[in-house]
Amino acid sequence: MKLETMVKQRAVLEEEQGEEEAMEMRRLELWKHEKRDGFHPPPPTAAAPPPMPACDEATLVPPLNFAMVDDGIFRSGFPAAANFRFLKSLNLRSIVYLCPEPYPETNTEFLAKNGIKLHQFGIEGRKEPFVNIPDEKIREVLKVVLDERNQPLLIHCKRGKHRTGCVVGCLRKLQNWCLSSVFDEYQRFAAAKARSTDQRFMELFDISSLKHLTPSHC
Amino acid sequence: MKLETMVKQRAVLEEEQGEEEAMEMRRLELWKHEKRDGFHPPPPTAAAPPPMPACDEATLVPPLNFAMVDDGIFRSGFPAAANFRFLKSLNLRSIVYLCPEPYPETNTEFLAKNGIKLHQFGIEGRKEPFVNIPDEKIREVLKVVLDERNQPLLIHCKRGKHRTGCVVGCLRKLQNWCLSSVFDEYQRFAAAKARSTDQRFMELFDISSLKHLTPSHC
Repeated sequence: MKLETMVKQRAVLEEEQGEEEAMEMRRLELWKHEKRDGFHPPPPTAAAPPPMPACDEATLVPPLNFAMVDDGIFRSGFPAAANFRFLKSLNLRSIVYLCPEPYPETNTEFLAKNGIKLHQFGIEGRKEPFVNIPDEKIREVLKVVLDERNQPLLIHCKRGKHRTGCVVGCLRKLQNWCLSSVFDEYQRFAAAKARSTDQRFMELFDISSLKHLTPSHC
Repeated sequence: MKLETMVKQRAVLEEEQGEEEAMEMRRLELWKHEKRDGFHPPPPTAAAPPPMPACDEATLVPPLNFAMVDDGIFRSGFPAAANFRFLKSLNLRSIVYLCPEPYPETNTEFLAKNGIKLHQFGIEGRKEPFVNIPDEKIREVLKVVLDERNQPLLIHCKRGKHRTGCVVGCLRKLQNWCLSSVFDEYQRFAAAKARSTDQRFMELFDISSLKHLTPSHC
């Protein structure tokens, strides 16, 4: 399914942006394709591979606090233009954006060019002691995140610490992770900025109405 | 391929350990199967699902410093018996163990029961300033890690900070991540225990001889 999407994206690219960008897209497609087929070294009799560009040109810059959450689910802080080449390599179908501020034009253009759908959930990034995390909104976010039709997807807020951390924490509860492991993961990203209010929110977050979305049906 | 492995594992389980464990394995298989097919809610007309065990029974305890590195590649600290149910849910084919100490009997038994192959690379966990990270051994580790026939796999050392952090850092270099992102990720797991010698090792690690293992062929 992912490969089909790539072919579609490539056709759109070739039409809209010319051959150069389509060439780059094909190279990224090769990445994914070869990854799925295995990383095995070529047999000794294989012909030498065609010359490739120098590695410096291919350097990828993941967004701040980037990490893989699960198959097809990534998390990060706000992606800047410097991260776009890296994001392309993820073959994203959607971005789940957790801030109320409008999405920047550069980012919106990047999404349009690459056929990536934006799901925005405006959650205020309040600091303690004025935190009021909208339980119902997090529930809606999780429905979008867990719907495989939206994957691969990237969840991000501003720093990838609090709002993103809470969403991922609630997802881990749905995956039946024990609470101390949920907190460990939250703290790994929030570090010195970890908030006890966020952790209390995750602890009290009621997952019962979302059970049907989980793989365990528990 | 993963599903085939699961079926084989189940047959072995049924033969060796009786119906109870095989039932549990089937439940885990259902997890993965349903995950691949999507997390969509059942249609309103669907019959009620069969009763499942209470959630408390299903609570999973990931090992210390557990995280997903990439498709089919996980990292963590040393798994204890409390983590075995969680590890089962990952459907691992291999464990890449980075310490010279013999693998504990309980863990070896768990691996044997579940058809998981152990790849041990005895790297000393020396502290600064006596660090001497074996370049060639890390290279051998990466060959095993990047071979899809060994995946899904878990890389672990004792704390999941230094030896595991170096292996993952070198893997990120192969994926063309910029060095500051490689260091960010290393520090997220090592936190206050981050070592400048580890970071220097990752910076100087020569990936040129491993390029054929990467998806980019760069």
